Amino acid sequence: MIQMTQGGICAAKGFKANGIHCGIRKNKEKRDLALIVSECRAAAAAVYTTNLVKGAPIQVTKEHLADGYAQAVICNSGNANTCNADGIQIAEGMSRLVESKLCIPSGDVIVASTGVIGQPLNLSPMEAGIGELAEGLMAGPEGSAHAAEAIMTTDTIKKEAACTFTVGGKLCTIGGIAKGSGMIHPNMATMLVFLTTDAAISPSMLKEAITEDIQDSFHMMSVDGDTSTNDMLSILANGMAGNEKIVSKGDDYRAFREALGTVTKSLCRAIAADGEGATKLIVCKVSGAADKETARAAAKSVICSTLFKCAMFGADANWGRVLCAIGYSKAPVDVKKIDVDFASDGGRVSVCRGGSGIPFSEEEAKRVLSAEEIQVEIGLGEGPGEATAWGCDLSYDYVKINGDYRT
Amino acid sequence: MIQMTQGGICAAKGFKANGIHCGIRKNKEKRDLALIVSECRAAAAAVYTTNLVKGAPIQVTKEHLADGYAQAVICNSGNANTCNADGIQIAEGMSRLVESKLCIPSGDVIVASTGVIGQPLNLSPMEAGIGELAEGLMAGPEGSAHAAEAIMTTDTIKKEAACTFTVGGKLCTIGGIAKGSGMIHPNMATMLVFLTTDAAISPSMLKEAITEDIQDSFHMMSVDGDTSTNDMLSILANGMAGNEKIVSKGDDYRAFREALGTVTKSLCRAIAADGEGATKLIVCKVSGAADKETARAAAKSVICSTLFKCAMFGADANWGRVLCAIGYSKAPVDVKKIDVDFASDGGRVSVCRGGSGIPFSEEEAKRVLSAEEIQVEIGLGEGPGEATAWGCDLSYDYVKINGDYRT
Repeated sequence: MIQMTQGGICAAKGFKANGIHCGIRKNKEKRDLALIVSECRAAAAAVYTTNLVKGAPIQVTKEHLADGYAQAVICNSGNANTCNADGIQIAEGMSRLVESKLCIPSGDVIVASTGVIGQPLNLSPMEAGIGELAEGLMAGPEGSAHAAEAIMTTDTIKKEAACTFTVGGKLCTIGGIAKGSGMIHPNMATMLVFLTTDAAISPSMLKEAITEDIQDSFHMMSVDGDTSTNDMLSILANGMAGNEKIVSKGDDYRAFREALGTVTKSLCRAIAADGEGATKLIVCKVSGAADKETARAAAKSVICSTLFKCAMFGADANWGRVLCAIGYSKAPVDVKKIDVDFASDGGRVSVCRGGSGIPFSEEEAKRVLSAEEIQVEIGLGEGPGEATAWGCDLSYDYVKINGDYRT
Repeated sequence: MIQMTQGGICAAKGFKANGIHCGIRKNKEKRDLALIVSECRAAAAAVYTTNLVKGAPIQVTKEHLADGYAQAVICNSGNANTCNADGIQIAEGMSRLVESKLCIPSGDVIVASTGVIGQPLNLSPMEAGIGELAEGLMAGPEGSAHAAEAIMTTDTIKKEAACTFTVGGKLCTIGGIAKGSGMIHPNMATMLVFLTTDAAISPSMLKEAITEDIQDSFHMMSVDGDTSTNDMLSILANGMAGNEKIVSKGDDYRAFREALGTVTKSLCRAIAADGEGATKLIVCKVSGAADKETARAAAKSVICSTLFKCAMFGADANWGRVLCAIGYSKAPVDVKKIDVDFASDGGRVSVCRGGSGIPFSEEEAKRVLSAEEIQVEIGLGEGPGEATAWGCDLSYDYVKINGDYRT
């Protein structure tokens, strides 16, 4: 039923997007301002960082979404607009720029910023660029691509995903763009993820759907354990697919949730694989846990372990670090039942059975761990609980990128 | 009253130590087996890792200390004796080696191991070396130095500390050795810390003293956020100073606690400064917190932030990462009251007042942050709560060391 498709944030009916260089960043080749617009007012929901230090855009967006509706997203990169005395004013100013050009009330605009914390953000480059940005809004894959590029910071590739699905016989589409790379350890949301869908769904069901979804998607992903001050995932649902509006948790809701999960998990993989300095995507699959919470805790702990991430960078089958990370995860497990395998398109190697090491070929392990995507498969031997977490290795480049990020 | 002194683990009366190369490690230049012995049976206490995966030596030591007394410590490096099917047997075997040579009952021997997890540990090199190890026991600084070297893994310098103090008119001494470097994020104990004192103190007061002490010492230190499977801090108190035995929390106990804290904090600094790949010691001092717990949470979160550690490596005054880390620490703070200064022997630079950035000279900041010890001073503007945490920067070498640790 669910089919991946092209077009990212513009895949769903009635959405246009654009991204330009307006001058927030010094590099003129780099787009730094994105705009996403729905033809009509849409049900809207968002989840935000749990960091106590919150970017000004988060506070403004929360207010704007209080009524459950929105029509546009404006987002700049290069400056987080966080810990600035005039931050709220600037974020409100960004939403008014959209109002001035597109006749969308500023209260229906989602505002987001990403970049350095604690440097004043000047509105003037955005004032100068908003005309070009609005006039260039495009409905196709190009619009999505420009917007996806404009929200990138240290990302090396843009992140887009979309799929089609059916609700009550109507073909619906959901798609999105995301940015990640560093300060990625989401808690109640992720770095920046913008989603659009033409499915008709009430604001409350929309909020419910993303709140449920992130438990198995963005909450299960980490690049560096640092929860950003500006994390935000937002979704606009404009109803243009013509399905009967989803207002409760029946079959239609489940179909929507499944499609949503398909897009968010795809974006998770993309963010983790493009983590700052990453050379490898690490997918940790835990099965046999007593319950889902245990599986989640164990999987997340493994992909967050600095030591294990370094071992993966070096293609070193140091499975003791996997057990160590499970051990401090607070997940209640029986160490004597833990099995560990490493797998990739280079093959499979079993390294631990019943909590103890078993003989394996170091040469074979090296081959398995030299692939670009590594599966760490952990069996806990206790029950039906399963979970997957996405992470990346820790390389010299992470240190390089973050040793001098501001200058 | 408290005076730092030489001699580390042998500084207190009645303690001898030694460390030799017995053959667990391939490098013949590297000592790999340590022995610490008290002339008489001593009150003893220990705290251990909270990791659910525990090294076999931890389990054996717990049993041996159940009665509150011990007389010797044996510790090897190069192999953690963890996740091995025959681990308990090997750890018991190590304690019996001490019994066989020194007539100390194996039940009075503290056993510890550090190194790779999940590789079988062979008793035979230790059997072959125990004679030389026992015969070479020395009372002076040389004995402490040899033992301190023998417990090192990726440490680049040995860690010793000792001080004298007075209890009821009697001069007492407390000293110790430690090893750290990687997998350092202690929780209820630290990597490996062995302490000795000639003060007379009951086992229960001794346990109380170390349990209290670690909250402000080893629990406030982190190298990489990975809590080891083999963390252990143990202390032997042989009473040879002749003071009236400390059996309750009076002045004598407080004098002992102060001396204990002097030694443990000194070892904390040494472990953090010699963290794997570290080029800088980071000391984070939080003041003005509503209470001590808030101060601890904020200070610990800052020194644990991967992003902040990278910024320190690059001497980049990226104070936004300090605020970000306080924000996700779960410490209840008012962001609008946070002040941040950086200081070192290169000077002082104020970067944040009331939660917002203030202008500062990047050149001056670079000079301050290029020192070998950086103070991060955070004011929370709310109350009398204070805490200090010790960490280090994250460098290319950490990744290098841990990308291929086993081979």
